[in-house]
Amino acid sequence: MDIEQLTYLIGMAGMVAFAVSAVLGMAEKKVDLFTAVVLGCITACGGGTVRDLILAVPVFWSVDMNYLWVSIVASIVAFYGYKFFERKRINKLFLYVDGIGISLFGIQAVDKVWSHAFALPVGPIILGIITAIGGGLIRDILTGRPTLLMKRELYAIPVLIGCSVYVLVLEYMPGFQAIGSIISVAIIFAIRAAAIRKNLEVPQWLTMGYKRS
Amino acid sequence: MDIEQLTYLIGMAGMVAFAVSAVLGMAEKKVDLFTAVVLGCITACGGGTVRDLILAVPVFWSVDMNYLWVSIVASIVAFYGYKFFERKRINKLFLYVDGIGISLFGIQAVDKVWSHAFALPVGPIILGIITAIGGGLIRDILTGRPTLLMKRELYAIPVLIGCSVYVLVLEYMPGFQAIGSIISVAIIFAIRAAAIRKNLEVPQWLTMGYKRS
Amino acid sequence: MDIEQLTYLIGMAGMVAFAVSAVLGMAEKKVDLFTAVVLGCITACGGGTVRDLILAVPVFWSVDMNYLWVSIVASIVAFYGYKFFERKRINKLFLYVDGIGISLFGIQAVDKVWSHAFALPVGPIILGIITAIGGGLIRDILTGRPTLLMKRELYAIPVLIGCSVYVLVLEYMPGFQAIGSIISVAIIFAIRAAAIRKNLEVPQWLTMGYKRS
Repeated sequence: MDIEQLTYLIGMAGMVAFAVSAVLGMAEKKVDLFTAVVLGCITACGGGTVRDLILAVPVFWSVDMNYLWVSIVASIVAFYGYKFFERKRINKLFLYVDGIGISLFGIQAVDKVWSHAFALPVGPIILGIITAIGGGLIRDILTGRPTLLMKRELYAIPVLIGCSVYVLVLEYMPGFQAIGSIISVAIIFAIRAAAIRKNLEVPQWLTMGYKRS
Repeated sequence: MDIEQLTYLIGMAGMVAFAVSAVLGMAEKKVDLFTAVVLGCITACGGGTVRDLILAVPVFWSVDMNYLWVSIVASIVAFYGYKFFERKRINKLFLYVDGIGISLFGIQAVDKVWSHAFALPVGPIILGIITAIGGGLIRDILTGRPTLLMKRELYAIPVLIGCSVYVLVLEYMPGFQAIGSIISVAIIFAIRAAAIRKNLEVPQWLTMGYKRS
Repeated sequence: MDIEQLTYLIGMAGMVAFAVSAVLGMAEKKVDLFTAVVLGCITACGGGTVRDLILAVPVFWSVDMNYLWVSIVASIVAFYGYKFFERKRINKLFLYVDGIGISLFGIQAVDKVWSHAFALPVGPIILGIITAIGGGLIRDILTGRPTLLMKRELYAIPVLIGCSVYVLVLEYMPGFQAIGSIISVAIIFAIRAAAIRKNLEVPQWLTMGYKRS
């Protein structure tokens, strides 16, 4: 498997994760199958669409429609599968699946933006963050949830760290692109999973908010 | 009247419907005339703007500014006219006018996307749905309402059905484009109106949500 | 200082104002430094990004990355500085800083859109309004606040007036561009500040909403 196939696979896996996260995020709402599919697709395609508009390249799902089919199928499977999980577990599951999605999308976006040499060196990192969290923000806004960005646990920081690591790999060790992309995905997910599991938060002096008094 | 004039007319009527729906949706808010006009224009132009950005064509209202004038005038008329309707009727009226808007915008978008041969055959349907529901989603988010997509009544399905019918007409019966577009608009509105009137919902097994227990 | 430097400065000052407003708007939320920076950048860059996408020109912060650095630094300074203000003053401060931002961004956008001769004569005014209020709307939606547009005090009208004045200057008195841009910024901020300070509202007959009965 060459590097191009690898990033294609990473992108597809990201689509699945985000589409599933959207459906899980609506588990308590009385929406129908088709609404679930529409929201799954918007969530899966949203961040990348914004990225491609800013990059001024054709929107990815118009070039390769497999992206759409994958998110449609993933949404349908999640629609029928979510009830196998206990109600109280759904929210944790939602957070982890979202975490997988941001890891995959962040790194795939860095790869695409880097190959277009857009606004180097920070452009790929910025668009990596936008792509990773964009779809989820749209999902949370449309379903009326508070956005994950507003939670106290680490959310954007893991993406920043992973994308920066991958940019360093691309710049200084281009021969290690394949292994570098996998490790970067793992870094993001590991930090984010720790944040979810252990309620990992930044220290007080790095947090906003007046003290209760 | 040739087919070009007809789709132009359909587009304009859609602008009116969405601008009016935005103003009706704010009937309980204490906003001023100009805010109503701004929100009317954003709602009327929002979905089509996203469509044109994805299509990578000049945004429609920059090419033909009549679209703007029509939505401005429609917003003003709705601003002064809505009080002729009883308070308790306003919400139903809002839903029906929104239903007219999604019917017209869905079909007009399919027409435009088809003529640009974008991502055939599903591209026109996808962008039809995005155009039809996009402006309304922006309206609901900006005015702080739960989006219509999250309601249990059929919302996106009618647009999917109507747009698919119209794509079939364009593909297999191009000679019937004019009558086909009118029938497709009617199909979307008829299903949506039935959904509003009779609280038409999909069967339980096609609906999300854990049972209360 | 020539006119180009002046509008550059106006744009940069606008970035600072919007980034700071985003951080102030989260003063009660328990977010971390990096989330604050991400939201500061999205708020500062959001309106202009939408403007540039509609204009079909490269997004401004990809061409000149100083815009990004300025909003990052401004966000960090605001993150550590906001506690010097009393809790009950923060909200007023937020409104004024936002008011500075919309004044600067509105006029800078008119300038850019005018120089691209986009959809004259109303194009610059429309995109001036979109740029001025766009970032703030995104900020309010992401942080879960009701948007400032929905408040009863004048919000979009000052921008309309100032942008219109500046368009008249550009059309009929191009020799007075520099002084005209400064005066137009001042007009927007003066009206908006009066609206905040004196709860300036439009007369009843220009306001929506059924009477309480």
